[in-house]
Amino acid sequence: MAESDRAAFVEKRIFELPSFTTVSGQTINAVRVGWESYGTLNADKSNAILINHYFSGTSHAAGRYSANDLALGYWDDLIGPGKAIDTDRFFVLSSDTLVNLNARDPNVVTTGPASINPATGKPYGLDFPIVTIADFVAVQKALVDSLGITKLHGVMGPSMGGLQTYEWAASYPDMMSRIICVISSGVVDPWLAAWLEIWGSPIRQDLKWRNGTYDPQDPPLEGLTQALKIVSLHALHWDWARGQFGSGESGQMPARDGQSLLESLDALLAIDATLQVAAAARALTCDANHFLYLVRANQTFVAGLGATCRETAGHPQSAKDAVGRGVSSAPAEGLARIKVPALLLYAPGDQVFPESWIHETARRIEAGGASVETAAIPGPLGHLNGVSGMRPVAGQIQEFLTRA
Amino acid sequence: MAESDRAAFVEKRIFELPSFTTVSGQTINAVRVGWESYGTLNADKSNAILINHYFSGTSHAAGRYSANDLALGYWDDLIGPGKAIDTDRFFVLSSDTLVNLNARDPNVVTTGPASINPATGKPYGLDFPIVTIADFVAVQKALVDSLGITKLHGVMGPSMGGLQTYEWAASYPDMMSRIICVISSGVVDPWLAAWLEIWGSPIRQDLKWRNGTYDPQDPPLEGLTQALKIVSLHALHWDWARGQFGSGESGQMPARDGQSLLESLDALLAIDATLQVAAAARALTCDANHFLYLVRANQTFVAGLGATCRETAGHPQSAKDAVGRGVSSAPAEGLARIKVPALLLYAPGDQVFPESWIHETARRIEAGGASVETAAIPGPLGHLNGVSGMRPVAGQIQEFLTRA
Repeated sequence: MAESDRAAFVEKRIFELPSFTTVSGQTINAVRVGWESYGTLNADKSNAILINHYFSGTSHAAGRYSANDLALGYWDDLIGPGKAIDTDRFFVLSSDTLVNLNARDPNVVTTGPASINPATGKPYGLDFPIVTIADFVAVQKALVDSLGITKLHGVMGPSMGGLQTYEWAASYPDMMSRIICVISSGVVDPWLAAWLEIWGSPIRQDLKWRNGTYDPQDPPLEGLTQALKIVSLHALHWDWARGQFGSGESGQMPARDGQSLLESLDALLAIDATLQVAAAARALTCDANHFLYLVRANQTFVAGLGATCRETAGHPQSAKDAVGRGVSSAPAEGLARIKVPALLLYAPGDQVFPESWIHETARRIEAGGASVETAAIPGPLGHLNGVSGMRPVAGQIQEFLTRA
Repeated sequence: MAESDRAAFVEKRIFELPSFTTVSGQTINAVRVGWESYGTLNADKSNAILINHYFSGTSHAAGRYSANDLALGYWDDLIGPGKAIDTDRFFVLSSDTLVNLNARDPNVVTTGPASINPATGKPYGLDFPIVTIADFVAVQKALVDSLGITKLHGVMGPSMGGLQTYEWAASYPDMMSRIICVISSGVVDPWLAAWLEIWGSPIRQDLKWRNGTYDPQDPPLEGLTQALKIVSLHALHWDWARGQFGSGESGQMPARDGQSLLESLDALLAIDATLQVAAAARALTCDANHFLYLVRANQTFVAGLGATCRETAGHPQSAKDAVGRGVSSAPAEGLARIKVPALLLYAPGDQVFPESWIHETARRIEAGGASVETAAIPGPLGHLNGVSGMRPVAGQIQEFLTRA
């Protein structure tokens, strides 16, 4: 393979930690996460931008793994030579989170309930400790440290990637120059926390789940498919649905030509069949327990949890107090720790992180003295505009990243 | 019991049709639906207002059944002597739909898959014909005819009750003087149709469902509970959730005091436990197959379907053509059949029938020449404002109903 070809493809690397202690005081041995990068780290290591992925995403933010690889990274519109996140100038890196959903994807490296527990030789299952967004970020922080980077040019990401970005900026406020949080607010509202539970419930309802002890060769695929289907519909917008399937009578088209929805309950709508087929395909590379652990990580998100726990070291109860006991600070406090300029990009009609929450987050960050800009991502996709519809805001991102 | 006491309580009556033919040409024998009324029908039978209930509702729109009955009808704030829908002036009636969800509620009378099939002596199950909103309305029309009422003063209802109201006005445009459609648009969008499928999916996933042939003594309660839970959360708004459970850390409160969400996946959020308990209680009087038939009735909603089928009598394919084959009219056509003044009340932040759809419906009705007014129902409940938060719009309703 010629050197020029090799440079064109993305390489997956593995970062390992022999031992990692979660914010709630649990120790996990042999933590491994995958990571990849685009562009070149400069001599003084000042040009790094960290990308954090969304709930069902991976570290594959840009490029392709081989000539045969048809799926570009999810933000490939933004990341590359001459693009908004210009890899001729920046060293862009991205890592798989702990408990990454796509645990069965050969390009994903993660540690979670599907990993083998060295103590038993079997998958951890629900013996794996509950991990938080702050733990995801602590592992990333160790990766960044390992590269000798002491200050990131920027930290950014969509949805759960935005939550990680808030946590980075609140817990390590001196480690970056700016943040871009996309389709995410700095507080996970009880309404969203309850929806996250709904997302995961078909897995719990699947008898094959067996309280997390399923056979890896016979996982709860039906429940996982249903869970992914709910996430997809929730992350999309009715404008997308109309664009794809029409409205009114034409939107009630059955999946199979010649079938009528009035004939049988088995006759499916075209939109439902489309969501079902896509979810079933994705389920094959996802892990059901990882899904549930991601649900819990998002439900327990508190910006600045990592810092809170660091500052109260020796008090192992601190994380448990900070999450959901009401004994901690108001949610504003974590966000007010943020020191650097922030760009918050929201999607109009977003049903997961509604627009009003993003404006509220902006006010909470501003209350701590940092400057905040907000802008809409136009497009018909709803929440998913922040993943698959970012081209319209490429200019704003480029300007924000290159501002002196 | 004194006469004055008796008058204070609502009486359930039963309307029977020896034979009923659905819009898609299936015949059901011995159709029975419950109905109730408030106020007195005047001599010329000109003061009747018909109320249509929502997806999970019943004919119990106002009052109580006995002195021990703690639950008032869902629109009791609106209906009664001296209230916006003044029973000193109007005769208000309301009937249980076909396939009513609350089939096991002793106060509900309905016909659906849980009814005994006279041909087999067993519940119909999925042998019951698929019914539509137009069929619900055709049964109501027969009830209204049986009372000798030739023109209703008004037809109204929330959510699915609004769909029935659009169908009434489009299929029987000369049979009322005005309509009030609450939290509902005149078109069921593919996005909502897909959500309806998600609502019903936990029932299909429950092994006890047995493709609709479950033992009535051992029904798929877990799936039904989960289905009801999704409907509840979808029909509420994050402002409600914040009001009940706070936001940020305090909104992540676990259901049990002293438990931490970081300890175990079994630790539930307070909001989730609240929804779960309420749904489990409701599931006891609901029927799982009826839920799925209601899903399909809403998915196949086309305003004016009854009229379309009447006009093409002798072409049994007409209903099947009109629903989901794209061969019928544009969705506007049914709504443009409406002749009478319409008041459309929408809930800001409604996640089931978004506000923009209601404005679109108003334009489609206006295109047919009828006059339309729209107004918001202020409140924190989202979609549910149209059921449980109607007091703020009582004055508008009263004015609209009494306008000369």
